[in-house]
Order: sequence, then C-alpha cells, then structure tokens
Amino acid sequence: MIGRVNHIAIAVPDLEAAARRYRELLGASVSGVQELPDHGVRVVFVDVGNTKVELLEAFGEGSPIAAFLERNPDGGMHHICYEVADIGAAIRRLTEGGARVLGDGKPKIGAHGLPVVFLHPKAFDGTLIELEEVKPDFAPA
Amino acid sequence: MIGRVNHIAIAVPDLEAAARRYRELLGASVSGVQELPDHGVRVVFVDVGNTKVELLEAFGEGSPIAAFLERNPDGGMHHICYEVADIGAAIRRLTEGGARVLGDGKPKIGAHGLPVVFLHPKAFDGTLIELEEVKPDFAPA
Repeated sequence: MIGRVNHIAIAVPDLEAAARRYRELLGASVSGVQELPDHGVRVVFVDVGNTKVELLEAFGEGSPIAAFLERNPDGGMHHICYEVADIGAAIRRLTEGGARVLGDGKPKIGAHGLPVVFLHPKAFDGTLIELEEVKPDFAPA
Repeated sequence: MIGRVNHIAIAVPDLEAAARRYRELLGASVSGVQELPDHGVRVVFVDVGNTKVELLEAFGEGSPIAAFLERNPDGGMHHICYEVADIGAAIRRLTEGGARVLGDGKPKIGAHGLPVVFLHPKAFDGTLIELEEVKPDFAPA
C-alpha cells in the first residue's frame, strides 16, 4: 500500500538558521522560504535526490507544530509522509485494522495541494505518519 | 555534500509487533528480523522504493537505543542517515563549521559494514544525523 517516502518533516525553532546549517554544513540543496499561512508553517525544502526533507517553523496562530516545538524547543523529527495511490482505500484498510486516523478521519488538502491524512502516533511506535495521495505519479515500493 | 537518505531509523519497543503493523496495516514490504549484537539492535528493513525505514529494537546490554526507548517508551523516530562520498571530508567540513561529531570524532564501521559517524542533535534542530560513506554507489543530490 504505502509507496515512496514523499518527505521527512523536521520542526525547527529558527527556519533561517536551520536552512543555513543544511546549506553550509551539510552542503545540501535548500529552497527559499515558503510561507503557508493556511497550514500554519513556514517551510524550506531540502532536496537530497531520492526524497525531500522539509524544515518547518511555526507560523501564525494555531500552528499544528506549535505544541511539538513547546515540548521540543530545539526542534526534532516531526513526521514521515508516505505516498499512496488511493487515500480512501488506505483509510479503510487502516481503520478496519484498528489504526486511528486523526481528525474526523477524512482526507484534507495538504500543504502540497493533495489529499492527506495523519495517523495517530500511538498506532505506529510513536511515529506520526502522513499519507498523501499522489496519483498519477504513484510508484509502488 | 550529503546525498540520498539511506534510511530513516525508528526505535520500537516490540519489533515483531511493529513489523506486523507495517506489513498488515501499511501494506509495506518488510524484511525478516536481523540480529546485530555488535550494534546492540535487532532490526527489520521496510523497503519503500526510494529509501528504507529501519525499525530498531534494543538488543543486549548497552544498546545505543536503550536510553531513547526509556525516554520514549512507545518508540519514535531516532535518526536519519544520509549518504556521503567521502566521510573524512564531511567530518572536516562539519567540525570546521562548528558541528559536533559524536564519540571521538572518527568514523566507525556501522551496521551496514560501511564507515559512519553521528552528528550531535543539538547542531541540527534536535535531529540525530548519521552520515554513511557509500562510494562507489554515491549519488549526489
């Protein structure tokens, strides 16, 4: 069911400083800053060739990463996003198997403009998992 | 400098249960269990096509993930491993830039039989980063 890792999201307290470290110390290819007010984050994309690392800073009121950054003031790995071909089928399989989909259990349009859901970290070893429907580019593992 | 994400490591309290969830709920391709006593872990590999997720359980005395699992009894994302072409050059660049390499600052042979170092999470937004030298298969980002 799950395909490629679309991105690994890392919450950071200072986006410009984090971007500079990835660029200068790790020699990575780092995008400019994008503000996504509807999603409560500012983000840069680190392109590492086979996937992306997204560095996220809280932006505005009610940011979905604000509580995480309060618990982890240095920042930390926030979630992993896997691609799926059919998010409705994925949700059915997961809920029938007892995994909890966050929110009302229905897909929302995520930061990339595609349908996403998040799975409760308790169901997957403390790891917050995002599923993103990416057809027609889906490549099964 | 950094290339592909070689793997994302997730520490789990119960490896067989975690492997079953990835296989049955996420429909992923999950390897059999490997015991790596020299590295203090039991591991399964989840092949998602563009990279690997490694589920790690503590194994034996002095496991490098035991303290993490004490702090995070449900498990959690433990580290990201990036490929580099020349680990000596990477260490020089990082230390000259002020990032701290864990241990004595020299590469060790990691769980894949290749030279690795770990970078202090304080230097990278609370994220533990492993660098693995993978020449001749290195693909720059």
